[in-house]
Amino acid sequence: MSRGLEKFFEPESVAVIGASATPHKAGHDVIRNILANGYAGRLYLVNPKGGEILGLKVYPTVEELPEGIDLAIVILPASANAAAIRACAGRGISHFVLAAGGFSEVDEGGRRLEEELAEIIRETGVRVIGPNTSGHTSTPHRFTSSFFPLGRIPPGHISYLAQTGNFATHTMRYIITHGLFGVARVVGLGNKLDLEESEVLEYLSQDPETRAVFVYLESLKRPRRFLEVAAQLTRRKPVVLLKGGRTQAGARAAVAHTAALSADDRLLSGALRQAGVVSVEKYSHLFLAAKALARMPLPRGNRVSFLAPSGAMLVALTDLCQNRLGLEVPALEDASRRGLQEMSPPYIRMRNPVDIWPAALMIGIDAAYGQGMEIVLNDPNVDAVVPILMLTADFGLPPLDFIVDLARRHPEKPIYATFSGDKDLMEQARSELEPRGVPTFSLIEEPFEVLSILARCRQAMARP
Amino acid sequence: MSRGLEKFFEPESVAVIGASATPHKAGHDVIRNILANGYAGRLYLVNPKGGEILGLKVYPTVEELPEGIDLAIVILPASANAAAIRACAGRGISHFVLAAGGFSEVDEGGRRLEEELAEIIRETGVRVIGPNTSGHTSTPHRFTSSFFPLGRIPPGHISYLAQTGNFATHTMRYIITHGLFGVARVVGLGNKLDLEESEVLEYLSQDPETRAVFVYLESLKRPRRFLEVAAQLTRRKPVVLLKGGRTQAGARAAVAHTAALSADDRLLSGALRQAGVVSVEKYSHLFLAAKALARMPLPRGNRVSFLAPSGAMLVALTDLCQNRLGLEVPALEDASRRGLQEMSPPYIRMRNPVDIWPAALMIGIDAAYGQGMEIVLNDPNVDAVVPILMLTADFGLPPLDFIVDLARRHPEKPIYATFSGDKDLMEQARSELEPRGVPTFSLIEEPFEVLSILARCRQAMARP
Repeated sequence: MSRGLEKFFEPESVAVIGASATPHKAGHDVIRNILANGYAGRLYLVNPKGGEILGLKVYPTVEELPEGIDLAIVILPASANAAAIRACAGRGISHFVLAAGGFSEVDEGGRRLEEELAEIIRETGVRVIGPNTSGHTSTPHRFTSSFFPLGRIPPGHISYLAQTGNFATHTMRYIITHGLFGVARVVGLGNKLDLEESEVLEYLSQDPETRAVFVYLESLKRPRRFLEVAAQLTRRKPVVLLKGGRTQAGARAAVAHTAALSADDRLLSGALRQAGVVSVEKYSHLFLAAKALARMPLPRGNRVSFLAPSGAMLVALTDLCQNRLGLEVPALEDASRRGLQEMSPPYIRMRNPVDIWPAALMIGIDAAYGQGMEIVLNDPNVDAVVPILMLTADFGLPPLDFIVDLARRHPEKPIYATFSGDKDLMEQARSELEPRGVPTFSLIEEPFEVLSILARCRQAMARP
Repeated sequence: MSRGLEKFFEPESVAVIGASATPHKAGHDVIRNILANGYAGRLYLVNPKGGEILGLKVYPTVEELPEGIDLAIVILPASANAAAIRACAGRGISHFVLAAGGFSEVDEGGRRLEEELAEIIRETGVRVIGPNTSGHTSTPHRFTSSFFPLGRIPPGHISYLAQTGNFATHTMRYIITHGLFGVARVVGLGNKLDLEESEVLEYLSQDPETRAVFVYLESLKRPRRFLEVAAQLTRRKPVVLLKGGRTQAGARAAVAHTAALSADDRLLSGALRQAGVVSVEKYSHLFLAAKALARMPLPRGNRVSFLAPSGAMLVALTDLCQNRLGLEVPALEDASRRGLQEMSPPYIRMRNPVDIWPAALMIGIDAAYGQGMEIVLNDPNVDAVVPILMLTADFGLPPLDFIVDLARRHPEKPIYATFSGDKDLMEQARSELEPRGVPTFSLIEEPFEVLSILARCRQAMARP
């Protein structure tokens, strides 16, 4: 049961314990983030100095806070956390985000401090995210507890569950500033003293705002429960996981990171796969696949058609699909082949993948790619289409409306665009396509890697 | 023997047979390319209409050309090539680039045309690149026979040998407009009727302008000879190969592309590896690895140190290095570890890979990364260093001189930079670092993939 997680994700009142008037300090930037996101609940600040911060009254002590605040964000040194929780609990606060590091991930002294917190949790029944978390985010509630300068976080339907603070810090800045997609809920688990992955996963499984869950974990605190929840969830929503610490060296680095020992990895891998969780190995795939999923439907299967201005690209990418990515490059229906042949010079024998250069030279890039994509999108053997657009100064940037239009008229098949040619035209094409819902990728291999991940998600969803 | 290839790469006089006054036609754009690159030899144009093109006199017939021109670029329909070669041979021209497609890659009629060319080659002893080639380039001689609008091609020391025209067309535009690196010789082999890969490889092995060879092939015409040449060459220069058609579906696409049947691939793979040729599977690696190699030394080995603002990135990348890329993430000397510890808060235990965020927050990004990189660059266990720079608006773009300076003071160890954080700062950092010799990469995994390729090149070079 995800008992009472609503107070984390939909708090009506929040207290910042350790509020600071000094810009760039965590106790200050957390307030800025909350304000920047338009949080509509009541916000209380606590600092012994009192006064005002950013126009808000500061309470000198926790004892002066009103009763019944939903959530406290504690931004104090590790050693001061226990007393702060006790004081807050005395005012009826039951939910906490503990930002400080310096607990079990550090040394024996930190481990003892963490045990003291565990004791308080047992005694009082409070719920805790962290310690050692850079916070969590809930855009449907316009709320974040992150202390890293984020500004406004765009809302969307991708959720992150992570044993790392990255998705509340620089990786979230990457996602926001690259305009990749909006998020629903983001949880940095920190040391997982209380709240751990399986309970959050359960919350996300029931969360109507969450359409896909991207997970980074170095250890599982309750593997059996996680697998149970995942096994149900993955039939309805994609769950993509990067499990850190799969190698001995990686596991050593993980211990340095979160002090969490990783489970026997091979055993776990098999169980996760059986539960429909799709594993990835590249950190970047945690946002590239999310971007594709935020803008396009999940592919119905693993059969891809692609169009490129180069035989070598067609050959190399076909090899990559078949050899490494578990994607099929299917033969097309006869009618589709005839259609492609009609738009092409007779000297080239048209098929899937589609060599589009001759047609582009004859009838123009937009006509060639437009007609070619229409044909393969209509082919029942094809689940997804990747146009590799040739964009060079001499031919100029064609009007790309046709791709947006094709995406609209084929809502069941994802289209991922990528490019070959001139840098400035590629950037123009990106900035025309992305805001209109067509995801683009820098290197020609990326859309196929992403498709491979999402085709596995579909397979997991359809498993018996 | 690479008999007489000098006339391809250093022609003192060139004739364009099929010169055109119409912009965007191949017979026109090839002239523009030759002029744009500052070709210093004599240039003759032939077209029955006579007159002038781009200020140059046009000869109505081949028969009117002066004797002894080094090279003819023939841009005529397939069926007109045989007569053109005979006419040119009659004027003493011995070297040809044949641009037209429509030969054996198309149909039986094309195959007969190609046989006719083969017969002429046997009779006359002329040398031919193509047919079905988009041309070749030789920047030391400021010459290109490409008919794709390229503009000036920057000179450098990377050479391409390719059974595809991409490196004379849109991929070359990609390389040029992204400012990736300069090239020395580029050969699009086309149908390989005469000149094939082993002879070009031999030329490149002896070419002082070529420091590394990147190869795309779908078939080997003389596998034994290619392996002999490669086995010698790879001890002195890196040879990186993408072999297209490794899978059945890929091979089918290759037949559609160049009509060349691929050799038994597994057998060939082993032989190529033994000959020191390093295989890659991603087309993009043919320019990303080249970029790294153009700006940085070949790594002495496969041991990488990296610095990131995130424990999760450290863990995930360590797994990727060990699990997939054949890279080691070695332990550091004690002195190095002490040095890292001194710049970091005591709560984090410093090691390789290097968690740099705490130090960056304490002493600034440039000081933290600067000192950290210096320490790992000085460590004898480390062959290459990848800084993953955290760049976010709140911290601003630090002066990046320290990275350029570190690269200068550690000329034996490659540094590849990548980023996490804000898009505009990442772009600024790229445009500061790249022109000053430090290669940068968009996604954090790319420098490791590139390092994996180049470490294998070093291993090949050092093999017994």
